[in-house]
Amino acid sequence: MISNRESKFIKSLQLKKFRQLENQFVVEGAKNVLELLKSGLEVIKVFATTDFMAKHKELLSNHHELISETKEADLKKAGSFSANNAALALVKIPDETKIDTSQSILAFDRIKDPGNLGTVIRIADWYGFKQIVCSSESVDCYNPKVISATMGSFARVRVHYTDLAELLDQSEHVYGTTLQGDNIHKLKFQEPAVVVFGNESEGLSEDLKPYLTQEVFIPGYGSAESLNVAVSTAVFCDNFRRLLKA
Amino acid sequence: MISNRESKFIKSLQLKKFRQLENQFVVEGAKNVLELLKSGLEVIKVFATTDFMAKHKELLSNHHELISETKEADLKKAGSFSANNAALALVKIPDETKIDTSQSILAFDRIKDPGNLGTVIRIADWYGFKQIVCSSESVDCYNPKVISATMGSFARVRVHYTDLAELLDQSEHVYGTTLQGDNIHKLKFQEPAVVVFGNESEGLSEDLKPYLTQEVFIPGYGSAESLNVAVSTAVFCDNFRRLLKA
Repeated sequence: MISNRESKFIKSLQLKKFRQLENQFVVEGAKNVLELLKSGLEVIKVFATTDFMAKHKELLSNHHELISETKEADLKKAGSFSANNAALALVKIPDETKIDTSQSILAFDRIKDPGNLGTVIRIADWYGFKQIVCSSESVDCYNPKVISATMGSFARVRVHYTDLAELLDQSEHVYGTTLQGDNIHKLKFQEPAVVVFGNESEGLSEDLKPYLTQEVFIPGYGSAESLNVAVSTAVFCDNFRRLLKA
Repeated sequence: MISNRESKFIKSLQLKKFRQLENQFVVEGAKNVLELLKSGLEVIKVFATTDFMAKHKELLSNHHELISETKEADLKKAGSFSANNAALALVKIPDETKIDTSQSILAFDRIKDPGNLGTVIRIADWYGFKQIVCSSESVDCYNPKVISATMGSFARVRVHYTDLAELLDQSEHVYGTTLQGDNIHKLKFQEPAVVVFGNESEGLSEDLKPYLTQEVFIPGYGSAESLNVAVSTAVFCDNFRRLLKA
């Protein structure tokens, strides 16, 4: 079960302030909790229904001292999504690690929408990027809506926050989508690269543009003025993997 | 201004039942209202702030008898998004037209999330598809969340609802993404085509699969199990336009 005290604590972690204070975040829903249990992240507590526990006995066996059997209604009440009817976990926020610039990186300049950040984490995971770097003003990656939208990929992709200008300045291959860029279908890409995407409504900051070694344009064939940031990320990654120089 | 009666009427149109009864839908926000005014859709009424009216005098001049000057606070109260601080319009739902099978079509099997449908309408518009066809169980395209997510593209892309099996049965080139498909990077596509995408959690219905003339796979390079439907649509469209047989 979830005590009133626990329920209050879980609710408090919807706010970044309390996540930072407690150094914990919440993972909700069957898919996300299963991916969590398979990952190396440090699980503090798991609340799960009898049904979920029966179905995933083996995976849960490594964590049995952390599990609390919980009614579906209590899970829904404590969590932030009414669709969460199977499991919820408290997880330690992993320690800061250094950004590994020997691998390609997706970078986001002031990404604000939690659904967008969650979706790009899932896209990064599909296309084999293990690191995302966000500018400091971006939405927090431990926001429950971000975790939810990752569909489990939060467990495999590390998100860093830093000054992007500094990162781009150190990188040899810096790609970014702009309206003046070259047609992505006709380029070749090199690794390790940093690929940088702009803010949802304002695009890429002017002060980051000088760092781009190649401006890239995703060709349109109709009348829409733009693509959303997650869609641009996916189309970029698909072409990047296809067009990597051997 | 917006009278109480009008405000109540606008709110009622958040529900499909009332949209169908009144044959009207609501368009909110500066970008969407501007695209509406440029389109051939039949505008019934526009509520706009003094500021919006001053900024877009020329465009509004064709509709001046339909415009009601409105306070920002009243707009926010009547609309479904607190971010709507510029304009809101009532629009006639266009008459049913026949699906034009001489042009390529994006088709969606039981698409449920309004944000996803709005995003794929925007993607269709970017990639030059003028028609979307949804299975009858799909979310309504005049839902305010759908309109909002289209970023104006609702004004250029027509959405039809029909039995997909019938449509696919009549089409010579039917493409669909499946996990068993051929690598999309290595195919050639032909027009006019119907490209069909499955439900968010269940994928493509088994009874639609026999109609596919080419199963297509979007190659992954990491560990995520799937891409979301809007992301798959975008990656598909980008490859489709690139790989069309001359």
